[in-house]
Amino acid sequence: MRERVKRIFRKVNDGLDLIVLLNSVDPHIDMSFFYATGLTDGLFEGCGAWLTSDGGCEITTSALEEEAAKKSGLPLDVFRTREESTDRIKRRLKGRRKIGINASELTYAAFQRLRKLAPKSARFVDVSDAVMESRLVKDPNEIDLIQRACDIASRSFEETLPLIPSGVTEAEVAAELAYRMQKNGATSPSFRSIVGSGANGAEPHYTAGPRKIEPGDMIVIDFGALYRKYCSDITRTVVVGAASKEQREMYDTVAKAQAAALAKMRPGAKAKSVDAAARTVIDRTKYKGRFIHGLGHSVGLAVHDGGALNSGSDLVLRANMIFTNEPGVYVPGFGGVRIEDDVLITKTSPRYMSTAPRDLLEL
Amino acid sequence: MRERVKRIFRKVNDGLDLIVLLNSVDPHIDMSFFYATGLTDGLFEGCGAWLTSDGGCEITTSALEEEAAKKSGLPLDVFRTREESTDRIKRRLKGRRKIGINASELTYAAFQRLRKLAPKSARFVDVSDAVMESRLVKDPNEIDLIQRACDIASRSFEETLPLIPSGVTEAEVAAELAYRMQKNGATSPSFRSIVGSGANGAEPHYTAGPRKIEPGDMIVIDFGALYRKYCSDITRTVVVGAASKEQREMYDTVAKAQAAALAKMRPGAKAKSVDAAARTVIDRTKYKGRFIHGLGHSVGLAVHDGGALNSGSDLVLRANMIFTNEPGVYVPGFGGVRIEDDVLITKTSPRYMSTAPRDLLEL
Repeated sequence: MRERVKRIFRKVNDGLDLIVLLNSVDPHIDMSFFYATGLTDGLFEGCGAWLTSDGGCEITTSALEEEAAKKSGLPLDVFRTREESTDRIKRRLKGRRKIGINASELTYAAFQRLRKLAPKSARFVDVSDAVMESRLVKDPNEIDLIQRACDIASRSFEETLPLIPSGVTEAEVAAELAYRMQKNGATSPSFRSIVGSGANGAEPHYTAGPRKIEPGDMIVIDFGALYRKYCSDITRTVVVGAASKEQREMYDTVAKAQAAALAKMRPGAKAKSVDAAARTVIDRTKYKGRFIHGLGHSVGLAVHDGGALNSGSDLVLRANMIFTNEPGVYVPGFGGVRIEDDVLITKTSPRYMSTAPRDLLEL
Repeated sequence: MRERVKRIFRKVNDGLDLIVLLNSVDPHIDMSFFYATGLTDGLFEGCGAWLTSDGGCEITTSALEEEAAKKSGLPLDVFRTREESTDRIKRRLKGRRKIGINASELTYAAFQRLRKLAPKSARFVDVSDAVMESRLVKDPNEIDLIQRACDIASRSFEETLPLIPSGVTEAEVAAELAYRMQKNGATSPSFRSIVGSGANGAEPHYTAGPRKIEPGDMIVIDFGALYRKYCSDITRTVVVGAASKEQREMYDTVAKAQAAALAKMRPGAKAKSVDAAARTVIDRTKYKGRFIHGLGHSVGLAVHDGGALNSGSDLVLRANMIFTNEPGVYVPGFGGVRIEDDVLITKTSPRYMSTAPRDLLEL
């Protein structure tokens, strides 16, 4: 993990003494703590990572997480009480003049604690842009973990498909998916699955309700697995029985949009151009204006991992970034289509990491 | 929800113009947003709640969450882009002189954004203590939701029990539990279940691994359901086959400690005395010093919901608070026992909300 830490410091290039990543109580955990330490298990409430420009990283950990923290192979400083934790932080901040913090994942209360425990003359510098830029470009170990998260989700989806035409509810499909992902090795789903059948498919952020799935329904299923802290995020749209002309037209439009975006997903491409490639395809059809969200986002330690593929993004794609490519069309009262895959940017062709069937499935 | 908002303001009593609860990107969501708005579904990334001393609450929401936000019945202010969101925040902060923030659930980056958009002369006041104190005392609606979360978890555990002696792994037990909770109406587990069999039971923060459960194993199973944003948190310890003398002795010790603590869980009791009641029972036996964590914590919108029952806590119990009561004994290399129930403090007797069998089960 030394290379990850060094990379963050290179991006800051600002004479920092130290960068601290400090967790609060769940869910207010800095996911970059796991990035810097390489830990892929454990909760680490109240724990901290202390990074130095030579790639060094030390962990202050509560006794409860000591066993989990040992797996990092990094130097540990164990505390048992809040007082001991305060003492550890104070000692580490002593004599420091310029301290980096990850403001986008640090609570304001935790910052105030650091401020109080640091030397009066110390300056704090927000390094969250550098942290996020580092996290955007995945290293081989991260790519492996995300690939596993994609494999588990893809396989679990395929295992769940046969159940869908048997009269189950949306919520039951979500439960089956979650179960299979966990049986296939996931920690849990990476987010709450969306199973939007019929008209419910027209709400991009619907989750899954008691509605029974019926013949003729088109169903948007958005799911992902969490594997050792890393996420996948996939959407498939299926039809129960034969697709109607309208359903197929919507699907084909979205599939073409996804392919157009994929072709642009190369190092040097602007995120907004990738979004535009998909949007143009849709806006030339009768579904103009029905693609009501951005094209995608980076995935990694978070499902929305800091980088956006949308019309307002300034991001430029680089090799080893991983993004969702997820155009959609939503027709209120009728339903929706979204097709979403996780794409690894490479120096040559972009690579789909998610493998579940991408054609319109008629179940 | 007006009463919840008023209660927060009464605790601050500081001439505040406004309190803002501002979400960032998942997982950096202020759970108090759900408390103040009464919303029990949706993600609400980047959304905010704006509270006033008359109990008023308005929501700034992204268009993606508009449908979900409507369920609150509160006034909505919908934005489509980051610029629109910034504009909304600026307008709401205009002319304000004293603005409350929830520092323990607000990122430092979000605070800096507020600071920049507020009038230069405005003062920010951290009201997180008031917010947390309000959240500690549950209203009838919250008690109902936590009861449902307890019922789902208890029932799902009982449904999972018959599988345990059949040679499954720890991870499979966790998957079955999660599946049943979701089938029984939960959104998901409220945290990653712990299934620690044999010697693994001696690690309080173990999760669940590939170890196959064998006859004679004692197994610590710590699980909970998330139901409409509210959590339950239960632990049961079971034995496969007949319990050994040592296993039963450990179990009986912990059960006595739990009962001693329960008897103290009444309005006016000090949290540290409740912890001491359980600790004294254990420390008078040969397991002295083996109860290596605090007795419990409040549950609600978070699993660790802000209040602690431990030797360092200054909390005083009040009616309608809900705490876990979870003493444990851990013997490295041998195993562990923990018994954990969610307890509603009432003016009369404390009430167990979790109902799964509390005697040592020999499966």
